[in-house]
Amino acid sequence: MKTVKHRRLLLATIGIANLVWVINAQNATSNLTSPAQLSLMPIPASVQLQPGRLPITSGFTVAIKKYSDDRLRTGIARMVRRLEGRTVLTLPAEVSTDEAAATLVVQCERAGQIVPSLNENESYSLEITDKQARLGAPTVVGALRGLETFLQLLQGDHDGFFLPAIRINDQPRFPWRGLLIDVARHYEPMEVLKRNLDAMAAVKLNVFHWHLSEDQGFRVESKKFPKLTTLGSDGLFYTQDQVREIIAYAHDRGIRVMPEFDIPGHSTSWLVAYPELGSAPGPYKIERGAGIFEPALDPTREQTYKFLDKFLGEMAGLFSDEYMHIGGDENEGKQWDRNPQIQAFMKANGIKDNHDLQAYFNQRILKILQKHHKKMIGWEEILHLDLPKDAVVHSWRGPASLAEAARKGYDGILSAGFYIDLMFPASQHYLADPVPENISLTTEEAKHILGGEATMWGEWVSPETIDSRIWPRTAAIAERLWSPRNVKNVDDMYRRLAIVSRQLEELGLTHEKNYRMLLRRLAASENIGPLLTLASIVEPVKEYRRYQMRPQTMLSPLTGLVDTARPDSDTARQFNSNVDAFLTDAPRFALNRSELERTMTEWQTAGRRLGPMIDQSPALQEARPLAKDLSDIAATGLEAISYLSNGVPATSQWRDAQLATLEQAAKPKAALEFATIVSLRELVIAAAELPTLREMSPAEWKARVKAQAQPPTKQPK
Amino acid sequence: MKTVKHRRLLLATIGIANLVWVINAQNATSNLTSPAQLSLMPIPASVQLQPGRLPITSGFTVAIKKYSDDRLRTGIARMVRRLEGRTVLTLPAEVSTDEAAATLVVQCERAGQIVPSLNENESYSLEITDKQARLGAPTVVGALRGLETFLQLLQGDHDGFFLPAIRINDQPRFPWRGLLIDVARHYEPMEVLKRNLDAMAAVKLNVFHWHLSEDQGFRVESKKFPKLTTLGSDGLFYTQDQVREIIAYAHDRGIRVMPEFDIPGHSTSWLVAYPELGSAPGPYKIERGAGIFEPALDPTREQTYKFLDKFLGEMAGLFSDEYMHIGGDENEGKQWDRNPQIQAFMKANGIKDNHDLQAYFNQRILKILQKHHKKMIGWEEILHLDLPKDAVVHSWRGPASLAEAARKGYDGILSAGFYIDLMFPASQHYLADPVPENISLTTEEAKHILGGEATMWGEWVSPETIDSRIWPRTAAIAERLWSPRNVKNVDDMYRRLAIVSRQLEELGLTHEKNYRMLLRRLAASENIGPLLTLASIVEPVKEYRRYQMRPQTMLSPLTGLVDTARPDSDTARQFNSNVDAFLTDAPRFALNRSELERTMTEWQTAGRRLGPMIDQSPALQEARPLAKDLSDIAATGLEAISYLSNGVPATSQWRDAQLATLEQAAKPKAALEFATIVSLRELVIAAAELPTLREMSPAEWKARVKAQAQPPTKQPK
Repeated sequence: MKTVKHRRLLLATIGIANLVWVINAQNATSNLTSPAQLSLMPIPASVQLQPGRLPITSGFTVAIKKYSDDRLRTGIARMVRRLEGRTVLTLPAEVSTDEAAATLVVQCERAGQIVPSLNENESYSLEITDKQARLGAPTVVGALRGLETFLQLLQGDHDGFFLPAIRINDQPRFPWRGLLIDVARHYEPMEVLKRNLDAMAAVKLNVFHWHLSEDQGFRVESKKFPKLTTLGSDGLFYTQDQVREIIAYAHDRGIRVMPEFDIPGHSTSWLVAYPELGSAPGPYKIERGAGIFEPALDPTREQTYKFLDKFLGEMAGLFSDEYMHIGGDENEGKQWDRNPQIQAFMKANGIKDNHDLQAYFNQRILKILQKHHKKMIGWEEILHLDLPKDAVVHSWRGPASLAEAARKGYDGILSAGFYIDLMFPASQHYLADPVPENISLTTEEAKHILGGEATMWGEWVSPETIDSRIWPRTAAIAERLWSPRNVKNVDDMYRRLAIVSRQLEELGLTHEKNYRMLLRRLAASENIGPLLTLASIVEPVKEYRRYQMRPQTMLSPLTGLVDTARPDSDTARQFNSNVDAFLTDAPRFALNRSELERTMTEWQTAGRRLGPMIDQSPALQEARPLAKDLSDIAATGLEAISYLSNGVPATSQWRDAQLATLEQAAKPKAALEFATIVSLRELVIAAAELPTLREMSPAEWKARVKAQAQPPTKQPK
Repeated sequence: MKTVKHRRLLLATIGIANLVWVINAQNATSNLTSPAQLSLMPIPASVQLQPGRLPITSGFTVAIKKYSDDRLRTGIARMVRRLEGRTVLTLPAEVSTDEAAATLVVQCERAGQIVPSLNENESYSLEITDKQARLGAPTVVGALRGLETFLQLLQGDHDGFFLPAIRINDQPRFPWRGLLIDVARHYEPMEVLKRNLDAMAAVKLNVFHWHLSEDQGFRVESKKFPKLTTLGSDGLFYTQDQVREIIAYAHDRGIRVMPEFDIPGHSTSWLVAYPELGSAPGPYKIERGAGIFEPALDPTREQTYKFLDKFLGEMAGLFSDEYMHIGGDENEGKQWDRNPQIQAFMKANGIKDNHDLQAYFNQRILKILQKHHKKMIGWEEILHLDLPKDAVVHSWRGPASLAEAARKGYDGILSAGFYIDLMFPASQHYLADPVPENISLTTEEAKHILGGEATMWGEWVSPETIDSRIWPRTAAIAERLWSPRNVKNVDDMYRRLAIVSRQLEELGLTHEKNYRMLLRRLAASENIGPLLTLASIVEPVKEYRRYQMRPQTMLSPLTGLVDTARPDSDTARQFNSNVDAFLTDAPRFALNRSELERTMTEWQTAGRRLGPMIDQSPALQEARPLAKDLSDIAATGLEAISYLSNGVPATSQWRDAQLATLEQAAKPKAALEFATIVSLRELVIAAAELPTLREMSPAEWKARVKAQAQPPTKQPK
């Protein structure tokens, strides 16, 4: 027997879709929302749907109770503008003074921290009845989080707009939920940062990790060392006024702004300006390639620390966050190895290798940061015996190394699994976890794991494409970092992700609206139908293969088909799911059959029509082999379906020929790959395996087919 | 017999499409571009296509000969970035020093004016052979104009990207080619202005008329009178640094920035801050409505002029253009009539009416502007006996009143016919002309007509929608103001407009990419098919009917269907053209038949499917009657086509019933109207007129049908 308490616990820990079913089943007669309509992301810690609904009309008003300030009022005003945008209703611009009559009452206890910090209380409660919505929060930031939830609850039907009656108690699982944007490989204008801060706030992320310096560019004005930008930035940098503008914008949304100055490696652009800081004589040129480069600061000279003391001191005054990220990654020390003075220094000081030398450097930097009242954070390379316990370790290796650091008493955040530049699907990021179930930590140790950050490394993003590399996938990561650990229904995540993605557009995000624009430019035409078909089922190659397959520099245009295609094809996922259901329908093979045939016939037509399009548009030249593949895989799929639905087994010759076709199509071209190959392999193998279907249950048979369809594991060379 | 000179004259004065045919006919064997591929807009003064083509490859380089400066180099760099964007080729970032080998040689004679002025020489020549392109210009601004032409010439085919060999000599017809953006009714963020400046440069417009103050808001920081923005702007204004940023951005593109401070009327926001300047005691509140309002500055008090002297003096220092616009329109003088002190002043000074009082005011303002070294421009209300000859008259009434002013010796510019906020199609603006053929002026008089300006009044535009109200139609106006008078082939204009519209996207313009976004938000869904069908054939009501039919305030959301629909439906124009051709095919009625049937069947389906969509999305509620109309007009059209193609005459009862249906559908709903009604009337009348087709030629018959199908002229009440 479930007590109320038990049920609440249960509700807190299962996906919202399941949850609503539970309640619906128990309140079959009440006027409840159907599960398909609730679309909260991230899912709150505790949700209870109630009977009833609160209508949203042009009489909508907001009252503020207890604490109020500009940050809260402008936050409410922004929410109201978005509500107006969706409802096309003119709502009162002013806050109401009539609490009893207000549609929404916001009750905030205190300001909270003006400079948001790791310890900020972000919790809130939201209680909506058919009379009124009441949002309660200890701090303004908590209230801002609740306002986003409020807006996500908006629904509409024949009777108008409304919010379902509901009780929500919510707080984040982790206090550090970040997005790194690398503006150094490619500069991003102010409006790109602002709209991404808006999007972060919409999914309750709270740390903007601003990756400001790299081999390829130095992006923030230093008044003490102006050459950093006059020589190291191509003129593309943020003035200090602009930095302050971004910080204020972020703080208004309850988001911390943590700068990163990556040292001692990744520092070519510093050395372009100040070669005397380098470990080799120079001169240096701004790096235009992608990869790991040799230039590194010289850790053995006092001049380096004098410079950094002055520079980091200046930045400590500019950036108000308590943490400063010093990078520290990927310094291979090749310049150090070749520099006799550095070698002599190491010998004289008993420093045995480059790792220890970098530890020495970090110790010095740590002292500088402490002097300027900043806590140090760095990539996990900084972890060393001498590292003091108030430094934070930023893991790109994985939860195991993070747990290891936690056991040693270090705070840490995870980015392994959240590298959104690697073009993996949202599902994969969604299931990565800073504290996965298979890692055991004491409660005390687990507290050291502060959260995580999605990392938008900037090698292959432009202001036109960056949003589509960040969103919507980062919303899934935001849910991982906010919601209870066992919220992990992938299908339901994708259902809600599609809705959140659309809602992000109202904040100015361009991930969706630039898609067709990019295709129109490529095609030099507004008639992009066949190209859209192709683009919708290919994905950029994963990991770091793009650069190998399609080398470019940081100055190259990012306007190719690979820049248009999404990392997580919705269309392919739908196709794969349809194939799965079709095979489940063995031996009838009727489910989704006409849908699959229609889809693949469209591929065939598109493949044929792409030829003339490519002839007219040389920018599409690299898509020519993909167009051929598209026709080929469509023909393969259609034949397989024909065998299956007619119950005629395919020959092994046919199967081998088709698998060869698919293998050819599976090879990436133009740094793109089809996201439908495994499903097509399943169809081919199933057609050839029809005779074995008589010998086993349909479920066993399907498992057999799917096992065979997995691509062969690559042989080590 | 045509001499070469004659032919060049001819070439200069006919549309490019015709021109290419002429040359093609004479060079039948050479490898010339087909007319459908040239897409210059505005059409240059003189164009001669040559045999041959200049390939554009990754070896593309630019050399600069003679004069060079930052403005030229950054202009070239911007052009190269766009070329890279379209071609997906990585091109050298640096200017080449090898003139002989360079793909493009830019030869500029001198800087020209750093603050662009009315007298700037904007001419250029462009000669492209299969070896090299040479762009020559007396000034940097001329070179910038030529670079835009260069980019518009880019084409692609099976052999790659190229520019056709060509000789162009070009200069503008008018020196004043402007776009007014009203940022007072609705504030527009910096990036909106910047991308519109980019678009202006792309179509060779050269005056940004910045309408900065209104009853509804005061948008520029005054350090002398800070209350203008602290009280009069809702916090939405440009700082002086931002103004300088916009001016520099515009100057870099050869665009003048002329501010307008509209006085003595349209001044409520000034009076909110400084009620003591008003003609009635106040207090005043920022106006939220649209229309003409009473508040006006008091022209009888010295305090007013002291204020304006200080304020306009400050602005004269901020804005570097030689002209300052003082508005002067739509002051009905009601406050003046009711103010006994003003009445007494008029009596004492022999001022007989409000028009004369405003003339007195203008005289005083003129002296203030002269003191601050500015020339005055104002709406044509400022025209008065005492107006000195160096003031410029800005006409909203039409070319006749402009010519009248010119005959009196006043310079003038035209905006009548270019009011893009009134939602008329591009064709209508395109055929408006500052000096139409039917107005006779001496050469000397005609010189007074400096050009014109498109006016984007801001009552019903937001940052999301403004681009779609300006573009692409303003490109047609830009052509009117740049190209020779007899370039006026409307069909060819629309062909090129579609291409230019797409190219504007690369500059960040959102007129196209926000379209589906707005529909997705309205539908709260990504499945917008039926809504897209409806939206594609309706247009916002013309002139000022929107406000009457669908009253809103300046604080209302601009996210409704009327904000999404375009002022100039391409789809409707295509449908209407198909109907026209179908009727021309009498008595066979086969041409375009299946296309028309397909289209209207799609309307029918969409009309049906819209019901459930609207049920789910209350924001679409106002579209419900339009959905019904869509089904109804589709049924009407399909029946008519069936009669016609079967050769069965429709009865007069049927005709009357269908015309009644169309009349019902023709009534605007949700401030939208179908742009296909006249064509549908033609189909209905044609079906009923089938018997008369035996009595006359098909052409006569078609004319008869079309005459009957014109909507009845409205009876005066």
